[in-house]
Amino acid sequence: MKATAIANANIALIKYWGKRDPELFLPYNSSISLTLNGLNTTTTVEFGGYDQDIFILDGQGIKEGKELEKLVRHLNLIRKIARVSEKAKIISRNNFPRAAGLASSASGFAAFTFAATEALGMSLDSKELSIISRQGSGSATRSCLGGFVEWTKGKKQDGTDSYAEQIALPEHWPNFRMLATIVSTKAKKVSSRVGMAQTIETSPMYSAWLDTIEQDLENVRQGILNKDIGLVGKTAEANCLKMHATMITTVPSIIYWMPATLEIIHSVLEWREKGLECYFTIDAGAQVKIICLEDKVSELTQKLENLGGVKKVIVCKPGQGPKLIKEHLF
Amino acid sequence: MKATAIANANIALIKYWGKRDPELFLPYNSSISLTLNGLNTTTTVEFGGYDQDIFILDGQGIKEGKELEKLVRHLNLIRKIARVSEKAKIISRNNFPRAAGLASSASGFAAFTFAATEALGMSLDSKELSIISRQGSGSATRSCLGGFVEWTKGKKQDGTDSYAEQIALPEHWPNFRMLATIVSTKAKKVSSRVGMAQTIETSPMYSAWLDTIEQDLENVRQGILNKDIGLVGKTAEANCLKMHATMITTVPSIIYWMPATLEIIHSVLEWREKGLECYFTIDAGAQVKIICLEDKVSELTQKLENLGGVKKVIVCKPGQGPKLIKEHLF
Repeated sequence: MKATAIANANIALIKYWGKRDPELFLPYNSSISLTLNGLNTTTTVEFGGYDQDIFILDGQGIKEGKELEKLVRHLNLIRKIARVSEKAKIISRNNFPRAAGLASSASGFAAFTFAATEALGMSLDSKELSIISRQGSGSATRSCLGGFVEWTKGKKQDGTDSYAEQIALPEHWPNFRMLATIVSTKAKKVSSRVGMAQTIETSPMYSAWLDTIEQDLENVRQGILNKDIGLVGKTAEANCLKMHATMITTVPSIIYWMPATLEIIHSVLEWREKGLECYFTIDAGAQVKIICLEDKVSELTQKLENLGGVKKVIVCKPGQGPKLIKEHLF
Repeated sequence: MKATAIANANIALIKYWGKRDPELFLPYNSSISLTLNGLNTTTTVEFGGYDQDIFILDGQGIKEGKELEKLVRHLNLIRKIARVSEKAKIISRNNFPRAAGLASSASGFAAFTFAATEALGMSLDSKELSIISRQGSGSATRSCLGGFVEWTKGKKQDGTDSYAEQIALPEHWPNFRMLATIVSTKAKKVSSRVGMAQTIETSPMYSAWLDTIEQDLENVRQGILNKDIGLVGKTAEANCLKMHATMITTVPSIIYWMPATLEIIHSVLEWREKGLECYFTIDAGAQVKIICLEDKVSELTQKLENLGGVKKVIVCKPGQGPKLIKEHLF
C-alpha cells in the first residue's frame, strides 16, 4: 500500500491554453512538449493506517486552500477508480520552485498519480496513467511519457481519447536542449486554471489562437522527426507569442511577462540575428526557456548569466518518463 | 510664399494599426486621440528662390534615405494640389525626441502641411488639412484638430471621406491628463509603416483586432462626452493591448515593449488596484502614456520618477489644434 514515483517536468513546444471541459480537464487544443531531465518531483504515497489524508509538499503540510482542494479532489478520483476508501499520506518534493512557470504541477500530478495508483496495485500503462493524471493538472498528461510527447485533445465527452502519446524517445534527439532561466521565484498572480477560463470568456484573440494550432502541431511534429531545430524553434516561439497575445487581451489583462522576461526575449532575438541559433518559449509565467542544440549551450549559458535579471540557468536534456523508485520519502 | 505653423502631437486612445490603401494612407479602422499640449513641432516653409528642396529637421539636413523620400513625396503632393513647381526650404523643430513612439510624425506632418499650404495661399479648413496631412503620416490626420479627435476611416477609394473630426474641445475636459514617460530615446527597430504591413500580412490576430474596434470607439466616444475616466481609461488600455497582441504575433514578431515598459505596466496595474486611478496606453514603441485626472498627477509623477527605467515624465493637457505663428524659423 506504499509506492514512490519520480516524474519529470515538461515544457510545451506547442502550448495548452483553455479547457473545453473544466471538470475532466479536456483541452480545446492538442499540445506537444519535451519531458525534461533535471526538473522533477518525487512523491511517496501510502494508503491505510491514517485517520485523515496528509499532504506534505516540499516539507510543508498543506492544510487548507485551493492547493489542498486540488490534491483531495485528485486523491478522491483515484480512490473512486480503485474502489477503495482508505485515507493516505502523500509526501512530495520538487527540486525546483513551485508555481513559478516551471511546470511543477505537471511533474507533481504525474508523480502523485503514478505513486498512488501503484500503491493501490493498479499497474497502469502510460495511456491510462496520462488520462488520470490529466484530471489533476492538464499539463501532467504530458509528463507521463519521456522524450517528445503529444497530448492529443480527443473528441469524446468522457475524455477517454484525450491522453499522451510519444512522438519520439529522448534518445532520438540527444543533443536537443532547453535552458530554463529563473527570473523570479514568486508565485504567479493569476493561476493557469483561472487565467484559461478568463481568456476563453473574454479574449477576442482566442479563436484565432485555436485556428492556427493544427499547423503549428504539424510543423513541430515534422521538426522533431527530422531533427530540424529551426522549424521546431521558430514554430514554438511564434506559438508561445500567440498564447501570450490571448492572455494580454483577456479582460482583465493577464500579463505574465516581467521586465527580465523581455530582457531575455530581446536578447535571444538579437543573438539569433547575429548567428547564434536559439529560440525562446514562455509558459504561463515569467520564466523564459531557451531552445537550442547542445553545441550552443555553453555560450548561451554564459550570455544568459550576464543578463541583469537572470538569477539562474538550468540546462535540461530530453528526459525519461516517470519511474518507480525503491527509496521512499517516509 | 512663406509661412510657419505649430502643431501638437496626439496620442491615440483607440489605436490606428493597418492601412487598407498604403498609397493614400487609408486605414482599416477609425481611431480616436487626444491632441496634447506640450509636445509639438514648429515648421517654416518657404517656396521660391531655391534650386532644390531643402529639409532641415531638428538642426539636421535631411539629404538621403527614407525620411527624405517621405518628405519629398509629401511636398510633391502639396505642389501637385496647388499646381506649382517651385522648390522649397523647410525647417522644422520638435520639442521632443523623434521616432521614439512619441508621435513626432503626427505633429510633424500636420505642421508641415499647414505651413506649406498656407505659404501657397491655400487657406484650407481642418477637414481638407487633415486629408492632405493624412497622406504624409496617418496619425497626422488627428493632429489637425485640438482636443478629442476621431479620424474616421471612410469607405471611399479616393480617401475623401477619411479625415479628422472633433469629438470635444480641449476645454470640454480640462482636467484630463496624459503623462508621457520616456524610457528610451533610441529610434524604433521596426517603423510603424513596415510593422503595419507585416501585421496585416502575417498576424492571425489581425481580424480579431478589427472586429472589436467599433465597440471600443463607441465606448471611448461615450466616455469622453460623459467625462468618464474609468470608461475611457479601461477601453484605451484594453485597446492598446489588443494592438500589441497583433504586433507580437506578426511573423517575424514585432515586440516594441522594453523591460521598462513592462515595469510601468505592472506598476500602473498595481497602483490602480490600490485605489490610485490611472490607466496606460502604448503606441508602436516602448513609451508608456498614463491616463488620469489632474488631481492624481503629482502622486503619479513622483511614483513614475521613482521607477528605475523611467528617464522623464512629461505632463500633457488637452491641447489646441495647429496654429499659424508669425515668428519664422528662418
